[in-house]
Amino acid sequence: MSEYTGYIGRSLEFLKLNDLVVGDSVKILSDLTFSGIIMPRYEHSDDKHVVLKLNSGYNVGLEIDKIENVEKLSTAEKNVEKIQKLETNPSLPKILLLSTGGTIASKVDYRTGAVTPILTAEELNSSVPELARIANIDTEVLFSEYSENIMPDHWLKIAKKLEGYSNSDYSGIIIAHGTDTMHYTSSFLSFSLSGYPIPIALVGSQRSSDRASSDAALNLIGATKFLVESKTKGIYVIMHYDESDEIIACHFGTRVRKNHTSKRNAFQTVGDSPAYLIFNNNIQKNTREKFFKTKVFSPKIHLDTKVALIKYYPGFDSKIIEKIIEMGYKAIIFEGTGLGHIGKTMYESIKKAHENGIFLGMTSQCIEGRVRMTVYESGRDLLNLGIIPLENMIPEVALVKTMWAVANSRDNEDLKKIMLENISSEISY
Amino acid sequence: MSEYTGYIGRSLEFLKLNDLVVGDSVKILSDLTFSGIIMPRYEHSDDKHVVLKLNSGYNVGLEIDKIENVEKLSTAEKNVEKIQKLETNPSLPKILLLSTGGTIASKVDYRTGAVTPILTAEELNSSVPELARIANIDTEVLFSEYSENIMPDHWLKIAKKLEGYSNSDYSGIIIAHGTDTMHYTSSFLSFSLSGYPIPIALVGSQRSSDRASSDAALNLIGATKFLVESKTKGIYVIMHYDESDEIIACHFGTRVRKNHTSKRNAFQTVGDSPAYLIFNNNIQKNTREKFFKTKVFSPKIHLDTKVALIKYYPGFDSKIIEKIIEMGYKAIIFEGTGLGHIGKTMYESIKKAHENGIFLGMTSQCIEGRVRMTVYESGRDLLNLGIIPLENMIPEVALVKTMWAVANSRDNEDLKKIMLENISSEISY
Repeated sequence: MSEYTGYIGRSLEFLKLNDLVVGDSVKILSDLTFSGIIMPRYEHSDDKHVVLKLNSGYNVGLEIDKIENVEKLSTAEKNVEKIQKLETNPSLPKILLLSTGGTIASKVDYRTGAVTPILTAEELNSSVPELARIANIDTEVLFSEYSENIMPDHWLKIAKKLEGYSNSDYSGIIIAHGTDTMHYTSSFLSFSLSGYPIPIALVGSQRSSDRASSDAALNLIGATKFLVESKTKGIYVIMHYDESDEIIACHFGTRVRKNHTSKRNAFQTVGDSPAYLIFNNNIQKNTREKFFKTKVFSPKIHLDTKVALIKYYPGFDSKIIEKIIEMGYKAIIFEGTGLGHIGKTMYESIKKAHENGIFLGMTSQCIEGRVRMTVYESGRDLLNLGIIPLENMIPEVALVKTMWAVANSRDNEDLKKIMLENISSEISY
Repeated sequence: MSEYTGYIGRSLEFLKLNDLVVGDSVKILSDLTFSGIIMPRYEHSDDKHVVLKLNSGYNVGLEIDKIENVEKLSTAEKNVEKIQKLETNPSLPKILLLSTGGTIASKVDYRTGAVTPILTAEELNSSVPELARIANIDTEVLFSEYSENIMPDHWLKIAKKLEGYSNSDYSGIIIAHGTDTMHYTSSFLSFSLSGYPIPIALVGSQRSSDRASSDAALNLIGATKFLVESKTKGIYVIMHYDESDEIIACHFGTRVRKNHTSKRNAFQTVGDSPAYLIFNNNIQKNTREKFFKTKVFSPKIHLDTKVALIKYYPGFDSKIIEKIIEMGYKAIIFEGTGLGHIGKTMYESIKKAHENGIFLGMTSQCIEGRVRMTVYESGRDLLNLGIIPLENMIPEVALVKTMWAVANSRDNEDLKKIMLENISSEISY
């Protein structure tokens, strides 16, 4: 990126006139006074605005014609953070941090405004120095993707990488991950790495580390503490518990969902408290369950993506089901209404799907609560059509489990058995 | 139904031997002691069990071979409820109750075990005598469907029926409705009957009126009180606020969702408190918003079902979008991840959909929070592909609004304008 990335015409002129480049800290008097860092501009920009990242973390576009005064506070160079290399402490346990991308594994380069991956060991130690007092952390960058672009193929790569560390001297492994699909990834690891000998924590952040409200550091500190001290196994998602900075929550990786678009406490254990809470430097255990229902580590790192998650709604066109049958799908997980219902207009196509050997599972779009298909006529009809009620599995988890189970079962009977077996606490009571 | 509906072979023999028929109250000693009513059996029953409805409301199947003793407590006839006709009080306001079906509009006939519609005026007065002290209630049965079978065509019929009562002397109208899709129906009425002159309350029950834990009566009493006393307009969903019987919640019909499969307080206003609460016989107002953003009643009772709600997930097959384009759909509402994201693998098909003139709207599968597509690169990419971010509209509400708006707009520009206009509090701040 150049010093003027994205600035054209009059806005470029404005920067040059005032001896400013992208990355400079400025105070601008317009209708109000704004302090912040000049940001690069993206495609399709006009030439009438200059964009500032305010200290709140939000960007604001200021109309050049309304700017009355500009004061440069510091130049771009001064905003680049210094990296300090800290020494390792041989008396502390070892942790591995695998980075896959996302907000937590990024920082805004104040010089260019671009979001770039961090999380080399040195940079991590520099940005969260508290970690070095809890553990010696090795870091490894697996990939650098925002999690909306993390696909089942990435799940396989993460799982295989973890399989390779199952006999290591690490006390636990952190996976830095974008928050959007972190719970899908945690589900896949829960099934494919059942019985994994050391705890694994998926950690994300809802606010990037250049924002005052960033949750990145505390989530990492909480996760490291948990991995070192909890003496447990399992796949956990570790994030803020509430809007404060007091409590960090450790959720079972199969019982968690991103329930808010932007809040720091977006992740919630569905229908229950998080399995562990970390506050006042203590780890409080809320669960009596062992995460894995097997003691033996038995990796099964396979999946099949010919599985659809279908949310039913009034007016749902059953022809969509017919298309899915034609496309050779092997399983459909429904998000039915209420206790696990679907309207009668869908029965014919469901029957056809069943006759075509497609596995049909039922979850509820209510998200909370258990499907129970014996209460009303509709539920009993659907049972007779071959739909399998999947207890209180979260729809997204049921989808991922089915992708995994299709690839790890001999036939539909075996698939059904696996789907109803509680493997990694995906079913709760 | 016969006296032995569904009983065959050995189970039929067992009933005859013990002089029992369906509907009898019995006490049975097996591995435990069970008291309840003998229920009819459904298709595909074996002949090894007798089914009891326990006082808890749940059914249990008892293995005949394990039954040690049977005691008949009362015969089927004694379980039939008596109907009392109450007189009307001319000093009270008038309310109309339109019944569409669902648990609230049903009761179990103890003679046969079948669930049948009630809610003729007499039966209602008999089962909830408190109502007659608040209002004179006329009742009308529109249809008798569990709500998983309520389709957009039913929404049109309900709306047209209500349009006919817009100049009546009723103080308000209750719609008895199954809970599974009650929030979809309330959304359609909110858009199609914008500005309706008297308040409308959709009321359901999560537990049928033959169960001790039934919420039917209290929800009806709360709704009636609200319609008579609140002096407001709008479409509301009125249900239990919590697990107690103390508080009834009145939710805006466009901000509510069924968030639990079975709890009595399954309905929640997303991201906020309910607009009104009723407790200690008082109505507490929690909102400063007027539900309708127009004062004029302007019915627009049309819809188009060529609208799909698509939940994105890792591995989503973009070919499904291609099929939807081929099927002539006019709009797709996405449930994206996080702030409103979809993986890059979908971009080509989204571009194609846009080029085919399909309206593309974005909501979030997080359910809570606002989509904001300017924060990350993915969001900006999707904006450039023509996707319209739909603020904090609940995905189901966005679906229904789009079905309505497609049929009430001149072109895509007009459709976009309508989708982003806050018509009936579907967008909140």
